[in-house]
Amino acid sequence: MDIKKIKNDFPVLVENDISYLDSAASTIKPRNVIDAINYYYEKLGVNVHRGVYKLSYDATERYELSRQRVADFINCKFDEVVFTRGASNALNLVANSYGMANIEEGDEIIVSELEHHSSMLPWQHVAKEKNANLVYVPLSDEGRITVENFKKVLTEKTKVVALTYVSNVMGYITPIEEIIELAHEVGAIVTVDGAQAVPHMKVDVKALNCDFLSFSGHKMVGPTGIGVLYGKFELLQDMNPVEFGGDMIDYVYLHDATWKDAPYKFETGTPLIAGAIGLHAAIDYIESIGYDQIIQHEHKLKNYAIEQFHKIDGVTVFNETSDTGIISFNIDNVHPHDAASVFDQEGVCIRAGHHCAQPLMKYLNQIATLRASFYFYNDKKDVDRLVNAVKKAKEFFAFFE
Amino acid sequence: MDIKKIKNDFPVLVENDISYLDSAASTIKPRNVIDAINYYYEKLGVNVHRGVYKLSYDATERYELSRQRVADFINCKFDEVVFTRGASNALNLVANSYGMANIEEGDEIIVSELEHHSSMLPWQHVAKEKNANLVYVPLSDEGRITVENFKKVLTEKTKVVALTYVSNVMGYITPIEEIIELAHEVGAIVTVDGAQAVPHMKVDVKALNCDFLSFSGHKMVGPTGIGVLYGKFELLQDMNPVEFGGDMIDYVYLHDATWKDAPYKFETGTPLIAGAIGLHAAIDYIESIGYDQIIQHEHKLKNYAIEQFHKIDGVTVFNETSDTGIISFNIDNVHPHDAASVFDQEGVCIRAGHHCAQPLMKYLNQIATLRASFYFYNDKKDVDRLVNAVKKAKEFFAFFE
Repeated sequence: MDIKKIKNDFPVLVENDISYLDSAASTIKPRNVIDAINYYYEKLGVNVHRGVYKLSYDATERYELSRQRVADFINCKFDEVVFTRGASNALNLVANSYGMANIEEGDEIIVSELEHHSSMLPWQHVAKEKNANLVYVPLSDEGRITVENFKKVLTEKTKVVALTYVSNVMGYITPIEEIIELAHEVGAIVTVDGAQAVPHMKVDVKALNCDFLSFSGHKMVGPTGIGVLYGKFELLQDMNPVEFGGDMIDYVYLHDATWKDAPYKFETGTPLIAGAIGLHAAIDYIESIGYDQIIQHEHKLKNYAIEQFHKIDGVTVFNETSDTGIISFNIDNVHPHDAASVFDQEGVCIRAGHHCAQPLMKYLNQIATLRASFYFYNDKKDVDRLVNAVKKAKEFFAFFE
Repeated sequence: MDIKKIKNDFPVLVENDISYLDSAASTIKPRNVIDAINYYYEKLGVNVHRGVYKLSYDATERYELSRQRVADFINCKFDEVVFTRGASNALNLVANSYGMANIEEGDEIIVSELEHHSSMLPWQHVAKEKNANLVYVPLSDEGRITVENFKKVLTEKTKVVALTYVSNVMGYITPIEEIIELAHEVGAIVTVDGAQAVPHMKVDVKALNCDFLSFSGHKMVGPTGIGVLYGKFELLQDMNPVEFGGDMIDYVYLHDATWKDAPYKFETGTPLIAGAIGLHAAIDYIESIGYDQIIQHEHKLKNYAIEQFHKIDGVTVFNETSDTGIISFNIDNVHPHDAASVFDQEGVCIRAGHHCAQPLMKYLNQIATLRASFYFYNDKKDVDRLVNAVKKAKEFFAFFE
């Protein structure tokens, strides 16, 4: 992996002397993705599906090619790929459509304190509306979802399991494959939040046998405003749309209407054409590097960073055994937001906050944490800069003590 | 208005020898909009609101500046602008949130056969769920929504009026201001589909006193995947979000949660950052031309086209009195899709189909129509080419009779 060459593909990294360590929030974008978006706006720029002229045919072709690219990428069928506004939108679609139609009073929905709000809150809403029970997998001492603990909460009443594949704060990989198998044994379906997984590891929905998988473009070097809901076709077909309008109907009468088949019945209105085309390019870019390389590289950076952190007094790392490139930590007696401001001055971009996971903050007994998240465009120098910034923040605030 | 100069601002028009007459479906994009999208991806590329580093502050500033730009543009307050995926998404949000919470059995919802599916179907859904009645304004002989006819269906039971400002097939302007006043007298709220209005005429939500207004970026030279819901702040504040997750919460507990104020509680997940920034540029572009010029110009083109159509036998225009640049027509004995194929060969891009308005097609007693829609980047030559293509289509298919 030639990181120098890779960095050159990212205009933001070329033009700014920064260490960008906030990829778990959003990745920056490579040239080929920007070019793909540009291609749509400069060469096509028109609507899809309904125009009977060449530009519209071309736009439609590229839009639908992107769907096929996603299908190949996660190993599913073309019509199992629903384009959404992002992972949050996809996760909500499952809850608002499948959940509202299938959850009844007394049913149980399993979530965890590791969930991003976008994975948990849609089901909290369904549980309230339907008088169902939201059940939390007890986390292990390390803060992990384990198969053993999952078994403790799985019952015959479980109808839905909504879990993250990779925690956006702890970087832990959930043993989702075994969980899916167990859930299916009691007849529950499993909706997987893949927002932090798909950008960093190969995800094969067939192999996992998950019922739904959601992820975002902007966390995998793709555009903002595009995401994917994968759903097993027979589940998607049975589900009702949650939005109604253009491009999703079959016949419309004054007081009744019928819908297209999945995935189109879920894609109301003019689609996210440029977003889908950009996502295609993002997948191309990621695959040109290769997941094996990406995982190895992220591990190396994470391990090196933790090693360095160990050498500094008063740094608490909350996830030393993180399975991915995510490190959550705090500096004793320094508020994470204050620390992040010092980091900013040092050109180190990281997140400080609750990371859309307030229940987990409570679990960790922190108001907020600092989070550094590595991606394939980071290198050892970025880690050195992070470590140096941590030292500076410590010194700076020690001065005021 | 220097159309030649304007055409030069649109890469698609520079590179293709076409007459683009499908702007009611989607407009093509000018250089400054493409540049604004590029600016975000090349210079910023990161997430908004939550990052405590310069790039994220800059992205947030530009994103929120776009909201202020929209607010100034339609004359409302900053926090009355909700960014959505498009007009369809915005129209659905009103129905799914306001409608589901406020409509009760026996209530009446007024719509019309002029509605785009995205304006009518969300309320058809609410009516079904709530056992309410969907009531259609009878159209005038010309196919218009008139104040007189609106009065015939307005009752004390009317709770919601969901009407289009400009018909996407007929180009008629609804007398919406008077309708809003009448609706308010019986305590009903009015949600306006502005998708075909905002790109073509000055819309001032304060002056209209509408309760909600929805429109899309891609129909006003902006990006795909971005739209706007305007709502009166007190209405938005009272409404429940329909999606839950990141960036819209205040506090999250294991079994409960609270939301941010409007508009943020409706913007779940990473927002459409590039889309919003591109929409800002689109508004700049439109205002640099000026609505007075745009309206006059569209009228001139429409009138000239209809004049020319009159000279051809066997062309039926369904909306001779169209108030905007939209003409719907058919050629006797030629299926609209067949005609459109000939048009495509002639470099004329128009729509053939039901235009997401099947009830209107039934009203017109047509399976489909041809629709030419003009915008400020079209000129007399484009009309001549359209007229010539109509003649060619007529000749071509007459040969097979």
